Amino acid sequence: MNKQIILHSRPQGLPDATTWRVVDNEIPECSEGQILVKLIYVSIDPAMRGWIRDQRSYLPPVALDDVMRAITAGVVIESKHEKFKVGDYVVGSGGVQQYIATSGKGWYPVQTDLAPLPLFLSALGMTGFTAYFGLLEVGKPQPGETILVSGAAGAVGSMVGQIGKIKECRVVGIAGGEKKCRYIVEDLGFDAAIDYKNEDVRKSIKEHCPDGVDVFFDNVGGEILDAALTRINRKARIVVCGGISQYNSDEMRGPKNYYSILMNRARMEGFIVFDFAHQYETAARQLALWLSQGKIRSKEHIVEGIENFYQTFLRLFSGEKLGKLILKVNQD
Amino acid sequence: MNKQIILHSRPQGLPDATTWRVVDNEIPECSEGQILVKLIYVSIDPAMRGWIRDQRSYLPPVALDDVMRAITAGVVIESKHEKFKVGDYVVGSGGVQQYIATSGKGWYPVQTDLAPLPLFLSALGMTGFTAYFGLLEVGKPQPGETILVSGAAGAVGSMVGQIGKIKECRVVGIAGGEKKCRYIVEDLGFDAAIDYKNEDVRKSIKEHCPDGVDVFFDNVGGEILDAALTRINRKARIVVCGGISQYNSDEMRGPKNYYSILMNRARMEGFIVFDFAHQYETAARQLALWLSQGKIRSKEHIVEGIENFYQTFLRLFSGEKLGKLILKVNQD
Repeated sequence: MNKQIILHSRPQGLPDATTWRVVDNEIPECSEGQILVKLIYVSIDPAMRGWIRDQRSYLPPVALDDVMRAITAGVVIESKHEKFKVGDYVVGSGGVQQYIATSGKGWYPVQTDLAPLPLFLSALGMTGFTAYFGLLEVGKPQPGETILVSGAAGAVGSMVGQIGKIKECRVVGIAGGEKKCRYIVEDLGFDAAIDYKNEDVRKSIKEHCPDGVDVFFDNVGGEILDAALTRINRKARIVVCGGISQYNSDEMRGPKNYYSILMNRARMEGFIVFDFAHQYETAARQLALWLSQGKIRSKEHIVEGIENFYQTFLRLFSGEKLGKLILKVNQD
Repeated sequence: MNKQIILHSRPQGLPDATTWRVVDNEIPECSEGQILVKLIYVSIDPAMRGWIRDQRSYLPPVALDDVMRAITAGVVIESKHEKFKVGDYVVGSGGVQQYIATSGKGWYPVQTDLAPLPLFLSALGMTGFTAYFGLLEVGKPQPGETILVSGAAGAVGSMVGQIGKIKECRVVGIAGGEKKCRYIVEDLGFDAAIDYKNEDVRKSIKEHCPDGVDVFFDNVGGEILDAALTRINRKARIVVCGGISQYNSDEMRGPKNYYSILMNRARMEGFIVFDFAHQYETAARQLALWLSQGKIRSKEHIVEGIENFYQTFLRLFSGEKLGKLILKVNQD
């Protein structure tokens, strides 16, 4: 059977037990030109909260009673497609379910001799690509500049900081709690960490970014964005990657100090990683090299069992995880 | 005597009769290396509200008991400076007063045979430069794109729209009241106008920008910025030139829909015209050419009498003016 997580209702605020339901369906047939993929790992991402919101966005919202959208990694178990063969490990938008029959459009093979499969959802996948393109193409840090990252112990944030160090910048991360702060400094090599749960963020930014902030890579929005805007330098770049503090609000809260953008001739810019699809290979090659050289580290937080999707998803918002959150929905 | 407008107190909210006072002082002496300028025209700008706020900004705040900062145009009546001679018409930061003795730093001569003196404070001065660099260097409009401008009947906004038409864009302006809306369409050639006092701005943007907004040139902030952000296109540019709706608030209000920047991979960027000082000449030459060809029109709203500074300044906020507001403080 194919267990699937189906969108049952659109939540107001934080999703709850009624937002999704688990259903059992037949394993789909593999038609001509298709592949049947056994999904093993499902990427759990803050963006999912946006995907179930009923509004115009960069992708259409997941429809009620449809399988929940997700980036996934799995193995081809049947192929009627000339480009894929049985046994190939592949990554694509498979959804939160155990099996998918697909034309293969948007799917790509990954080499599990280079790295374990879950890494192709984290450092060597969309997470790594988001950090790579967001920081380098939008943030454009120069050696010696100061990068401030929010959600710094998260999947994307932790990559951003490490790439920033490779690019010879001062890197300061904002994270929640002592454990995460210690992790990003001691394990990942950030220059400093700010514990937003126990510190006055604005004061701490001033302390740890004595030369101001040149690039603010924001995963969080809300008050942390407000605080960061008070310390940006002239010609600073604010990379709008996410706004997790606001995802469960009916109405996003705007950055109070946005006028600092004018005062400092700064640039606030958003991006969507999918726009860089034609450059994924370059990024993957570079990230794999850095990983093999020990210049970046990737941490995956893997939870077993498709039934645990909803509770696992909520960890994104409660912060009870470290690194990239992944759901394992089948054995390898 | 030299009548001067002195900053007397820092206002909370809208400035009032106690914010400035008028004083009479001696006409200053012209020392070696200086020029003595009889100021004739004083540029009245929204930015002045920011200059009297006690906070870190792109210029230090005007100190209490100092002459109010202003861009001015006048004539040299005494010169002990090799680069200026008596009779030269000059523009510089002279302040709201009738005479100034200055080293000439930051002052430049203007050719009144090309255009009347007040124009060097509007289309051929900082106002024109602001529109020119803000639109072309920050907004970077392409032919066929749609430009939306707030404060469209104002000094900068009306220039932005006209330059946008020269650049073969669709130009839609937002202004307050039927008269201003008619003016920008009938006299200045905007494609459409939205009367924010009598229309649902969001709906009207949708109607008049059927292909969405590629460049939003914002002079206003607040709810109009919120509305504009709901209609921006992918890769849109939001030029943060001003936020006059917020200047008298203790706390700026952030753009509620800032997340649209991410969804649309858009860029919100601030600028300060002074940063383009090295290119003023290019802009001045281009603007003068367009003016002589009848491609742009400039309207000056001139009020006589330095004693009327405070009431004149308030017109910026009440909207009781059309085009560039200028105070005449001396006879020519």
